[in-house]
Amino acid sequence: MSFSSQPILYSYFRSSCSWRVRIALALKGIAYDQVPVNLVKDGGQQFSAEFKAVNPMQQVPALKIDGITITQSLAIIQYLEDTRPNPRLLPQDPKKRAQVRMISDHIASGIQPLQNTSILNKMGERKVEWAQQCITSGFQAIEQILQHTAGRYCVGDEISMADLCLVPQVGNAERFGVNLAPYPTITRINKALLELEAFKVSHPSRQPDTPPELRS
Amino acid sequence: MSFSSQPILYSYFRSSCSWRVRIALALKGIAYDQVPVNLVKDGGQQFSAEFKAVNPMQQVPALKIDGITITQSLAIIQYLEDTRPNPRLLPQDPKKRAQVRMISDHIASGIQPLQNTSILNKMGERKVEWAQQCITSGFQAIEQILQHTAGRYCVGDEISMADLCLVPQVGNAERFGVNLAPYPTITRINKALLELEAFKVSHPSRQPDTPPELRS
Repeated sequence: MSFSSQPILYSYFRSSCSWRVRIALALKGIAYDQVPVNLVKDGGQQFSAEFKAVNPMQQVPALKIDGITITQSLAIIQYLEDTRPNPRLLPQDPKKRAQVRMISDHIASGIQPLQNTSILNKMGERKVEWAQQCITSGFQAIEQILQHTAGRYCVGDEISMADLCLVPQVGNAERFGVNLAPYPTITRINKALLELEAFKVSHPSRQPDTPPELRS
Repeated sequence: MSFSSQPILYSYFRSSCSWRVRIALALKGIAYDQVPVNLVKDGGQQFSAEFKAVNPMQQVPALKIDGITITQSLAIIQYLEDTRPNPRLLPQDPKKRAQVRMISDHIASGIQPLQNTSILNKMGERKVEWAQQCITSGFQAIEQILQHTAGRYCVGDEISMADLCLVPQVGNAERFGVNLAPYPTITRINKALLELEAFKVSHPSRQPDTPPELRS
């Protein structure tokens, strides 16, 4: 039970979907409390009755804010955008906004769900190979799309929701040992973003629940 | 090559993501041409060089509209919403809009990708059991969420993007033989929606590429 009036983020340091939301909160300068939910300890704390009451989907992230609880990272980010529009994470031009959503959804629906922990547990020995394959075929498409959309970042020169999806997905790619050499645009944009303070403070290596050996 | 000035939807009759977009187009009264892409014939026509030029993600749906090509069903629907807002598929209240996006993303990222054809092909004998399990655990969460959000439809009494995701996902559930008895709210809303003209004309049983034996 928390009596804080600040938003509360239920999060796991290594969850790429949680990281997306942490970046949004940092960029928009929203102070929040973080409640860690360990997705692997005790068979997964997200399956506890206590957390199920917070989020029936039994997933992180979940954000308690403004008297409601929102789940699904892109729904959370777009709620923040609707209620705290500065700085913008979606361009005003509808065509550019479509490009941002297309790249975001491609990662959020087309790559991440296929390589998340619950799926990998089903894959047994083929686990790493499977994760690499999903990410590789997803990144091939994104690299091609970025040829048409990218400037300094994924869509033009302004940071957008697409960038909030890209960096954590590259983090997953690195964890699974995916060779990033065929994706020079993804690599360039990821590097530029990781230099920004909002991406640094939200990084999995710097969260309250990051184990000491993974801290940096 | 088409010289039509109408939007062109690349679609597959049985693709639940294509169905979502067909409902949006029907509700908004947007006339369009449909180009069928058979996801199973010839090893999958989405993998052809010709279609890869349309959509590097090699997936349906893709919509050519206003001089651009948009992929990812929710990105397409939200572009239509941004440019052709009548009737609204996202409520004006940010909290209700968050509920719509939460339910939509839960289906689009949390259920559908796990039971799509390319994953099922990896599952061999466990195929149907796997699909049932993904849909069942997803529907358990949605049924609970709907207790807080639903009116006549998923969020209140107005049709929203969440409904466009729900009906095709129930269609998939039925195809895989999922027992829907534990989900009375999902079942009630699905039934109400299927009575509406926009859901009928967009139904997989009535598309240009629907095989004769599946027509109704």
